[in-house]
Amino acid sequence: MIKDAYERIAPHARRTPLLTSPFLDEIAKRRVWVKAECLQHTGSFKFRGAWAAISALNYEERRRGVITFSSGNHAQGIALAAMRHSVSSTIIMPKDSPRIKIENTRALGAEVVLYDRATEDRSIIEEKVNPKKSRILIKPYDDHQVIAGQGSVGIEVAEQSIENNILNAEVLVCSGGGGLASGIALTLEKLNSNMQVRTAEPNEFDDIKRSLISGKIEQNTKTSGSLCDAVLTLSPGEITFPILYRLCGKGISVSEEDALRAMVLAFERLRIVIEPGGAVALAAALFHGDELNQDDVIAVATGGNVDAEVFNNALAQYGSKS
Amino acid sequence: MIKDAYERIAPHARRTPLLTSPFLDEIAKRRVWVKAECLQHTGSFKFRGAWAAISALNYEERRRGVITFSSGNHAQGIALAAMRHSVSSTIIMPKDSPRIKIENTRALGAEVVLYDRATEDRSIIEEKVNPKKSRILIKPYDDHQVIAGQGSVGIEVAEQSIENNILNAEVLVCSGGGGLASGIALTLEKLNSNMQVRTAEPNEFDDIKRSLISGKIEQNTKTSGSLCDAVLTLSPGEITFPILYRLCGKGISVSEEDALRAMVLAFERLRIVIEPGGAVALAAALFHGDELNQDDVIAVATGGNVDAEVFNNALAQYGSKS
Repeated sequence: MIKDAYERIAPHARRTPLLTSPFLDEIAKRRVWVKAECLQHTGSFKFRGAWAAISALNYEERRRGVITFSSGNHAQGIALAAMRHSVSSTIIMPKDSPRIKIENTRALGAEVVLYDRATEDRSIIEEKVNPKKSRILIKPYDDHQVIAGQGSVGIEVAEQSIENNILNAEVLVCSGGGGLASGIALTLEKLNSNMQVRTAEPNEFDDIKRSLISGKIEQNTKTSGSLCDAVLTLSPGEITFPILYRLCGKGISVSEEDALRAMVLAFERLRIVIEPGGAVALAAALFHGDELNQDDVIAVATGGNVDAEVFNNALAQYGSKS
Repeated sequence: MIKDAYERIAPHARRTPLLTSPFLDEIAKRRVWVKAECLQHTGSFKFRGAWAAISALNYEERRRGVITFSSGNHAQGIALAAMRHSVSSTIIMPKDSPRIKIENTRALGAEVVLYDRATEDRSIIEEKVNPKKSRILIKPYDDHQVIAGQGSVGIEVAEQSIENNILNAEVLVCSGGGGLASGIALTLEKLNSNMQVRTAEPNEFDDIKRSLISGKIEQNTKTSGSLCDAVLTLSPGEITFPILYRLCGKGISVSEEDALRAMVLAFERLRIVIEPGGAVALAAALFHGDELNQDDVIAVATGGNVDAEVFNNALAQYGSKS
């Protein structure tokens, strides 16, 4: 299924580069490879899963249109993939999503419905917007096609590891619901058993880390209140968790401050723009070396949709000074 | 010579991606492709020419070491290429170079000698640092091997144009001394005669544009006083100018404000970091459409070494507002 998804995705997605910097290696005391999915179309890996899911719909399903909910990266991925397939899309987004994500989703042709996370129930909004469930729901992570699509990152990581003589490595993946991490883990299980996926999360949203320890799905006490919006989900999914539990190493969680420092180092050393939630894996690679086992670590920089103000504040606070 | 240089460079340099965004296409009213050389090692294309030149030295020359002068991108390229060849390097840099460039050049193992452009004569410094001319001088652009090395960008552009079905295009190149533009122009002359190189410069440093009009080497009245430090040279080179004159279309010059706006759009829409001098080609693509002839334009984003403060100010001034 992952291979089929990859064949549908590959002509349309970017094969994103694996970047390095001697300065980052020195901080991490190991070789750090950054899979720059922020350079993917729409600025995140989510385009892959969205393309996989929409391209798998039959004619009648496409005619009905699609619907989803997302703080912004899955939203943009669905919007662009839907537009390219001439499928209508509706996206339910929290009002406090980064402005750039809301704007881009609209600009890519989706109908955006905003709701207030604190006072409104998303399922009621969904009922109102999609009364007869005529639109096909494409969930952000707990969807087989979406997971298969995200798995295409794993295919590229396996290929690029060979190209770069990386034999054993830990693959750190910024994780919300676990769609990307489980897709990559399934792929690497087949293609390179010397690579192990490790999930990376913000400290106060470490549901996957705790779930991997307890062996059952644990929840966060909240799903907002961090700049790492891209990875703030309530819990790992019903489909993703068993995959993560079977295949991943221990989860790693990092402070928001470390995520912002990693974001600034990516600006200075790799010249890429990553968003706070897309920087937690790099933060784990750079600042949590005591939790890592291999000399090579591949950190997936999952997205780059960050508001200028957030980026500015981080540069001012953590950028190297004269 | 370009082909030979490419064979030496290719295993060590990155094949940088060609990025796009529907948002940029809409601004430019044509298809805009950005060759992201800011993702090259050391953050600029200069690594290519440096590698080509140093890898061409014989054993005795390597033993003597190399010397050059640069505001920073050629400096870093030489420093890294020299280090990888176990060759000692000395770089003469203006004191007012961006801090990140001075620091990185030192961190890459070069001996950095700073001088004051206003009060000191660079050639006297050079005489003092390299008294018997024992070190091999590798000029930033007026050097056959350096030009051949930069030409490797043209090889990749030709290949990537085929991959992306780009038939005719103008290739906009941020230009200081013209090393990159002449290298690409020579390559495309052989590989794809439907591609024409156009140089891009800041308005007050439009020596190449004026030289292409008058048919002889024209000079700028100054070589500092702009954030576009990477492209502030006195004039095109003795070797580069005849190549540019024979092969390039009209030069384009842009305001510093437009370069900064292009830098911000690259942040928002492509998630790459480019420096002001590396953004003049993208600025020409986006804001000088009336001077362009083709439906496809390829802008080379030549470098991404920008101080956080400069970037912050530009984001604050030109970033999209809520």
